[in-house]
Formats: sequence, structure tokens, C-alpha cells
Amino acid sequence: MSKDSKTIASSRRGFIRQSLFGGLAALVGRSAAAETTATKLSIPPWSKQLGQGVANPAYGKPSVFEKHVVRRFLPWMFATQQAAASFTPLQDFHGIITPNGLFFERHHAGVPQIDPDEHKLVIHGMVDKPVMFSVDDLKRFPCVNRVHFIECAGNGVLEQRSAQLNLLQFTHGLMSSAEWTGVPLKLLLREAGVRKGAKWLLAEGADAAGLARSFPMDKALDDALVVYAQNGEMLRAEQGYPIRLLLPGWEGIANVKWLRRLEVGDRPWEMREETATYTDLLPSGKARQYTFIQEAKSVITSPCPEYPILHKGLHVIQGLAWSGEGKVKRVDVSFDGGRNWQQARLKGPQLDKSLTRFEIDWQWNGQEALLQSRVVDETGYVQPSLKQLRDLRGINSMYHNNSIQTWLVHPSGEVENVQIS
Amino acid sequence: MSKDSKTIASSRRGFIRQSLFGGLAALVGRSAAAETTATKLSIPPWSKQLGQGVANPAYGKPSVFEKHVVRRFLPWMFATQQAAASFTPLQDFHGIITPNGLFFERHHAGVPQIDPDEHKLVIHGMVDKPVMFSVDDLKRFPCVNRVHFIECAGNGVLEQRSAQLNLLQFTHGLMSSAEWTGVPLKLLLREAGVRKGAKWLLAEGADAAGLARSFPMDKALDDALVVYAQNGEMLRAEQGYPIRLLLPGWEGIANVKWLRRLEVGDRPWEMREETATYTDLLPSGKARQYTFIQEAKSVITSPCPEYPILHKGLHVIQGLAWSGEGKVKRVDVSFDGGRNWQQARLKGPQLDKSLTRFEIDWQWNGQEALLQSRVVDETGYVQPSLKQLRDLRGINSMYHNNSIQTWLVHPSGEVENVQIS
Repeated sequence: MSKDSKTIASSRRGFIRQSLFGGLAALVGRSAAAETTATKLSIPPWSKQLGQGVANPAYGKPSVFEKHVVRRFLPWMFATQQAAASFTPLQDFHGIITPNGLFFERHHAGVPQIDPDEHKLVIHGMVDKPVMFSVDDLKRFPCVNRVHFIECAGNGVLEQRSAQLNLLQFTHGLMSSAEWTGVPLKLLLREAGVRKGAKWLLAEGADAAGLARSFPMDKALDDALVVYAQNGEMLRAEQGYPIRLLLPGWEGIANVKWLRRLEVGDRPWEMREETATYTDLLPSGKARQYTFIQEAKSVITSPCPEYPILHKGLHVIQGLAWSGEGKVKRVDVSFDGGRNWQQARLKGPQLDKSLTRFEIDWQWNGQEALLQSRVVDETGYVQPSLKQLRDLRGINSMYHNNSIQTWLVHPSGEVENVQIS
Repeated sequence: MSKDSKTIASSRRGFIRQSLFGGLAALVGRSAAAETTATKLSIPPWSKQLGQGVANPAYGKPSVFEKHVVRRFLPWMFATQQAAASFTPLQDFHGIITPNGLFFERHHAGVPQIDPDEHKLVIHGMVDKPVMFSVDDLKRFPCVNRVHFIECAGNGVLEQRSAQLNLLQFTHGLMSSAEWTGVPLKLLLREAGVRKGAKWLLAEGADAAGLARSFPMDKALDDALVVYAQNGEMLRAEQGYPIRLLLPGWEGIANVKWLRRLEVGDRPWEMREETATYTDLLPSGKARQYTFIQEAKSVITSPCPEYPILHKGLHVIQGLAWSGEGKVKRVDVSFDGGRNWQQARLKGPQLDKSLTRFEIDWQWNGQEALLQSRVVDETGYVQPSLKQLRDLRGINSMYHNNSIQTWLVHPSGEVENVQIS
């Protein structure tokens, strides 16, 4: 557990008391003496003085009491900070929209600072008429707004290899979600005129890695977008400013950032990041390739290693579920390592290829427990256990680990990341 | 037009050319010579060097090229910056989620810096058992996520009085939208036990104004929330950190920030901000009071005074619509000041008491035009013209101006805020 998290956990523990009331009242704990307390409530200092004025700053920042809620990276995991990843603090994440300042990152040559007035998108190859768009050209097209998660294919990669990072931020934090605004790619392809026989596209970024990935025409003509805005404002530099490709539900790297070029062809290009990496090595020695879809996955976010359980009795367990193939249909939760399952309540907007929150009530008796969640999406796909995943792909396949997460709750209330057979 | 906007407008004008192509190609303008250009595309400097590493900063910021997108206030409108408002830059706003850093503000004694570990919410008055909650207590309740706008009752107040501010940011920018996470107020009231005969509540903030407002029990038991998170993270200080009241669809001031106390009673309290202000003075001399609902409203956001039209031909007109009484059902757009109307396309998630984006194609012939949008919500309520609103409420009623906005497009492409009879 990080230092920040420890501070939070112990300060919470300091004033939370187990209650004698049943039902939801068990969540509260201080109602009995409140009448007296209410009349005696002292006036805090902030109620006695003028606060800060408006537009200070003109672009606002989080509360000074929330400084621990930041993206973090693992220095030992990458050779440089430019070819690295930072993780979203899922343990402090509410709702289904990740604030832009906390959206996870994965770069291969760092974040370029691109002047939007100089940036262009070219569509060429097997087209009737190559086209070039400025950012302002793209903004003049009809646009759509869609809420979608993006998950790195490597989210949970170390878990797949039996490492057990003991923080939710690092086990699942290469996944974030946003409302995206952009142009359906099919509208742009219509401008160029796709030639008969064209079946694949290559997307290339303007970063120094020139990161390039192949993807099939079917996706381009389905729900692919060229997006320029994220959560109401222009993309952040680290998310592809001024434009990125969005392939809803597909592995992060395929959503090419700083998009500069789309080439139309009849076969994939076999680029570095789809051959040497981002393939899944099977026990047979063959590798699965072009495994785009992030299959259904879920995780319990409260409790978690960062936020242990602080009292016996009633708890509302909270979690996140998502699927790259559509909507979340159902989430079940187990408190005994997968022997028994109970259906959780799904909450909030339940959108396509988007995050869905779930919750379920739990009476904790203070004994060891193994917490798990398991999602079923609208295609009927069921999130697998780690064992099922390994039976399917062996132990050398690192990417696309969507297996069930197990949290061991100790009698102390501490929560530990464990793998059970 | 502000200095920032002028710079933007003229830099865009510099490279956007009217096209000879028909259909959507008219939006583009450079496809003909693109094959040659594509092969000649020079490699920009940012493709030749390593960029910034991950988590720099750990809590991210907007692109350096987007510095003009900020909240602004009107110094002449308020005596101090602590009892003032800042406006959301709707002219640069995409989607239906306002970034937290750009959410409009209205404070009556500035922004208090509240220590969340010291803050409490008390519910007392006509209840069986007064209760007191810490912020962590509230976080342990079942919670919901809802996307709702908040609009200040004074949004458009100067327009109602015939002032004509010539920027979208100032005519409509006291309205923003977010995904909120919090506890249904009815769950908290159940803990306290509401006594028979209780019909109203008083919500009081912990700011130095001790801002307090009455609201009816029906709303409290319907969709009222006590929220702690906004767009995935804890509330910003200027939005009520650590907790605020959310009364979906109701005037901003009723959504009391820095919420410290809810009193249950049998009649409204007649506080300052519901008697001396935030009432609507009618021609009869009587004032409408407790006019909570922000009725259906819409506005065209592109073009607008900040972003004039730059070429003749095809344009995709963009706009926003919302209603405090439910979902947006339909938006119509007029190009001749309300004589003829055409139905716009509604876009994106269309949620209850939330923003809905609309768009419509328009061939501009270069002549003067009067652009208007008019929303109909699911209750059948139709957004009124300014004349209809004045016929109803006279000219001294300042608040709740939800009238149709008219943008005069000059032959130069400049867009001007006008009022037509």
C-alpha cells in the first residue's frame, strides 16, 4: 500500500465506528446523539471568512485535499518515461467518466506537442481520390458524441505472469473512459472513395515512434471515429491532440494517437507493434495476432488494497464492469472465492462499450473472505477465471488478461491481491 | 468579440477556402491535389524528437494550444469577485460533459477550502431522529451516477433586460453539465425518519454566506441527491467540495454547495435568496417565488459571435438543448428569424434533465440570415420567443430567461446577438 493510501486509510479508521443499528443505519453510526450534537455544532473557520473569488484559476484544479489522486507509473517496469505507461487511480474513481487529468497513458516515444494549425490527416492508398483534412476541416463535418472506455491490451499483463501488484491502480489502472466527440470514419472514407478489394487500413501517428497499426475495413465502416474532443474539450496532448483514432472496445494501441495518415489496402501491414509485440503467444508456439477486442472484464473497486475494510457489519461493495463487444448485461459477486455467486445491482447510464458500475450489499463477519466479480455481456460472454484463461492460452500469453480478480480480505480488514486456482 | 476569439477566427480564415465540390466534400476543400501533397508531406519537428514522458504532470492539463478555453467573468457585473459568476466557454465546448475545470461558478461569499475530515452533514427538524454524517459515512451508502446540467436562474438575465452581450460565453455560459455521483436524499431522510406533516426542507451551505434555500419534500423524495463526485473525481472546491445538494433540472442556486445542514419543516423558510432575490417580478407588482424549474432551452453554438462563418456553401450547424423537466424530444432550426423551421438531428446520449446535442445542414448563400433554434421537451413544452416570454412575465422579470436566441449572420460571416420582435 502506498504512503498516501495508508494515510487515508488510517485517518478514516480514526473516526469510523461500528454501529449497533440494523439495515442501512449500520452504515452510519452516530445518529443517536445527533440532536444534541447538531445544536452544539461549532462554526468552522471556513464559514467565517470570504473564500476565493471566481475564475481563480480560470481553468480549475482539484481540491487541495485530493492531491493523492493522480496517475502513477512504475519506474522499474519501463526503461524510459517516454516509452512507458501511467495508471489511472481507479481506487478513487467515481462514475463512468475518467477526468481528463487522470486518463491513463501509454506512449512509445513520449508526448509530442503538435500545433493544430500545422497538423493534417491524409487518407490515401486504395481510394479513388486521396484527401487531406486540417483539424478545422474535420470539425466542420457532422459529429457524434459517444461514451467509450479505452483499455490497454497490457492491462493486467503482470498478473497474467503471476506477479501480484498489491494496488488496484496497478492491477487494473490501464483503463479509462470518456465521452468522445468526432467524425465517423466512414464519412471521411466516403470523401476519398474506397476502391473495390480494400479490406484493411493502416493508421499512423505523428509521434517520433511513428506508431502504426493495421485494422480491418469492417470496423472502419462500423463505429470507428476520428475524434478531436474528450469530455467536452479538445483532446489532451497525451491523448492524441489534436486528433486520434477511436476503435470502440478495441485494445488501446489500435486507437492511434496524433493520427496523421490512414492508408487503405487489401491486407494488414505487419508493423512492429502487431508482430514483435501485442500478439499472444500460445502453448503451441504459434501467436494469436490482430486480437483487437477487449473482452468483458470487471473488478471490485471498494474494498481494494488501497482502501481496506474498516469495520464489521454491512458494506456496500462497489465495482466496475465493461465489455468491448457491447453492453454489460449482468454482474455477479462471490464472497467465497467463486463457490457461491450473488447478482449485483447495475447502476447509472448503461451504454455500449462503456463502463457500468455495480454494487451489492455484504455483511462482513470479520473473517477471511475471497471477493470476486464476474461480468456477463450482452453477447452472453462470461468473464473467465485466471485458470480458464490459462487453460485456453497457456502461461506465455501476456496480453488481454480479462480474468476474474480475487481480493483476499484479512480479518484485519486489509485487502490483498491473490491468485487462487 | 474578445481578443482571443479574434485571433482564432482570423487564423482559421487564413487557410479555409471555399470548395467547388458538392455534398459533404464542400466541407473539405482540398481533396483534388491531395495525392501529390500526401507524398510530399514534410516531417514536422514533433515527429523527429522524443516527447514528454508519462505522468508529467501526474494530474494532466489541457494542451498549451488551448489556453484561450477558460472560464471568464464580467468585472463590471459584480462588486467583488467573491460574490460573482464565471461563465463556461460554450463556444469551445464539445459533447455533453463540461470538464470540471470549465464548469461555471456562482458564489455568494467566495469558495471555502473545507477539510473533508472535519465536514459534517446534519439532518434535523421534523424528523424522528436527527442524524449526522461524515463524508466517509455518505460514501458508504448505495450511490447512483447521473448526468445532469446545472443552469443558473440568472443565465441570460441581461438579455431579458435588453442588454445584448455579443459572446455566446456570456449569453448562455451560466450552464454546465456533469456526471454526478452521490446518495439519493431519500435514503438519508429514511435514516432520520421524516415526521408526518413535513413538506419542505432547508438546505444550508458552509460558506461564509451561509447560503440557504427552501425546497419541497416531493423533490427530496424524487430525484434529489447529495453528491460528492463530479465527472469521476471528488467535487472541485468551487462546486461544493466535499458535498453539495443536487436537485436535477432546478435553478443553480437551489443546488446548495458545501452542504452542511438539511432542516425538515412544514413550510418554506423565506430566506434572503428566495425573497429579496431569485424571484420574478411580474407586471402586476406581484413576484413569482420558488420558481425552481429551468424550463426547456436551446442555443446554436456554431456559428456564434466567437466563431463567425468563414465561407459560403454547406455548413453543419451545431447546438445544445436541455430541459429541467425531462428529455429533449425535438429541436427545430430557423434561418429566417422564425418564419420557417426545419427539424434538426438529435445526437449522442439523450438523457433525462441533461444536455442534448443537435445539428442540421445549411447552405449559406452569403446573405444576411437570422439563425434560431427552438426545443420541445418530452412534456410537450415549447421554448418561447423573447416576445412570448415578455408577454407572459413583463419586462421586470429577470430570471429564468429560456427564450429563443437569435444570431444575425452578416454577409461578412460575422455573427451578432440580436433581439427581434
